[in-house]
Amino acid sequence: MKPIRKTDFPVEEIRRFLEPGPVVLVSSAHKAERNIMTMGWHTVMEFAPALVGCVIASGNHSFELIRRSRQCVINVPTFDLAPVVAKIGNCSGVDTDKFAAFKLTAAAASEVKAPLIAECHASLECKLHDGRLIDRYNFFVFEVVKAHAPRAPKYPKTIHYRGDGQFMVSGRSISLRRYFRPGML
Amino acid sequence: MKPIRKTDFPVEEIRRFLEPGPVVLVSSAHKAERNIMTMGWHTVMEFAPALVGCVIASGNHSFELIRRSRQCVINVPTFDLAPVVAKIGNCSGVDTDKFAAFKLTAAAASEVKAPLIAECHASLECKLHDGRLIDRYNFFVFEVVKAHAPRAPKYPKTIHYRGDGQFMVSGRSISLRRYFRPGML
Repeated sequence: MKPIRKTDFPVEEIRRFLEPGPVVLVSSAHKAERNIMTMGWHTVMEFAPALVGCVIASGNHSFELIRRSRQCVINVPTFDLAPVVAKIGNCSGVDTDKFAAFKLTAAAASEVKAPLIAECHASLECKLHDGRLIDRYNFFVFEVVKAHAPRAPKYPKTIHYRGDGQFMVSGRSISLRRYFRPGML
Repeated sequence: MKPIRKTDFPVEEIRRFLEPGPVVLVSSAHKAERNIMTMGWHTVMEFAPALVGCVIASGNHSFELIRRSRQCVINVPTFDLAPVVAKIGNCSGVDTDKFAAFKLTAAAASEVKAPLIAECHASLECKLHDGRLIDRYNFFVFEVVKAHAPRAPKYPKTIHYRGDGQFMVSGRSISLRRYFRPGML
C-alpha cells in the first residue's frame, strides 16, 4: 500500500465516492489522541453545502474524539486495503495506535486537525454542521469543507459492507445517461 | 421482469440490502394517489428498532405523499431493472402513473398503505419514526416495520448511483470473517 497522490476535488461532487455506499475509514484527532474507525452507515444529504450524515456509535473510541473536536476526515479505501479495513474495525483505539499498527500514513489536512489517511483513494475533510441528532441516534451531520482525490481512476474499486463479515466489491460501470433528462445530469 | 416471490425477512437484518448503498425505489400512496421515486441518499441508522434515514427532496411529487401519509416502501431493484430505474428517476408522478407506465406490479403491503413493487428483490415497509429534520434537510427517519425478500439469492445484483448518469453494478462477494472478533459478527 502506497500513499496516493491527490489533488483538490470539488466538494459538491463527492457523491461520486459516497453515494455508491462504500465502507469508509473515519480519522479523527483531539488533543494528544488520534484514531481511525470503519463506518458503513452514511449518506449524502446535500450538494452545497456538501453535507454528509453518518452514524458513529457512542461505543467507539472515536465518538468522543469527533464529538469534542467537531471534526473528522472521511477516507475512501479501495479493495487492496480490505484486510486492513476489517482489522481496523476489529480493534480499539483505546489500546492501539491504528496508524502505526497498520502502517498507514497520517497526512496533514488543511481545514481540520484530524489527519488524512494517505493510502486511501479520497479524503474528505469534515466539520460538524449539525449535532442535534447525536444524543438520540449517534447521528452526525458533517459539512465537507475540503476534498482530496487523485485525477485517475475516476471510479475507485471500493468495498461495501453487508454485515456478517461479508463484503461486496464494486463491479463494472454502466452509463444510463441516454435515459436522463438534461436537467437531471 | 417478473414479480419476485418473497417471504418474511427479519427487519433487524436489512443492513444486508441497504448498507452496500444501492439505489432504491420508494413507493408511496396517499388518498387516491400513488407514486414511485428513485433514491440514492439513504443510510441504516439502527438495528432495533430498524431505522433508516433518507433524503427525499421536496421537489419530488412523492415528497408530499410520504410526508402526509407518514409511510412508504423502500424497494431494492436489481440490475435487470436498471433502465426502468433510470426512467423512473426522469419522469414525474404529476403526470405519470409509473406503475402502469413501466409495467410494475403494485402488491399490497401488510403494515402500510403504500404498495410494494413486486418486481424488486426486497421490499421494506416503513413508517415515519422521526420527522424533525424534514423541514431543514428533507431528511426522514423511518422505521422498517416489515420486510420481504426471496430466500435466494442471498446477495442480489444491485445498482449504485455515482451521479452524472453513471452507475456501478455490484461485483463479487468476499468474506473477511477471519479478521472479525466474534462479538463483531
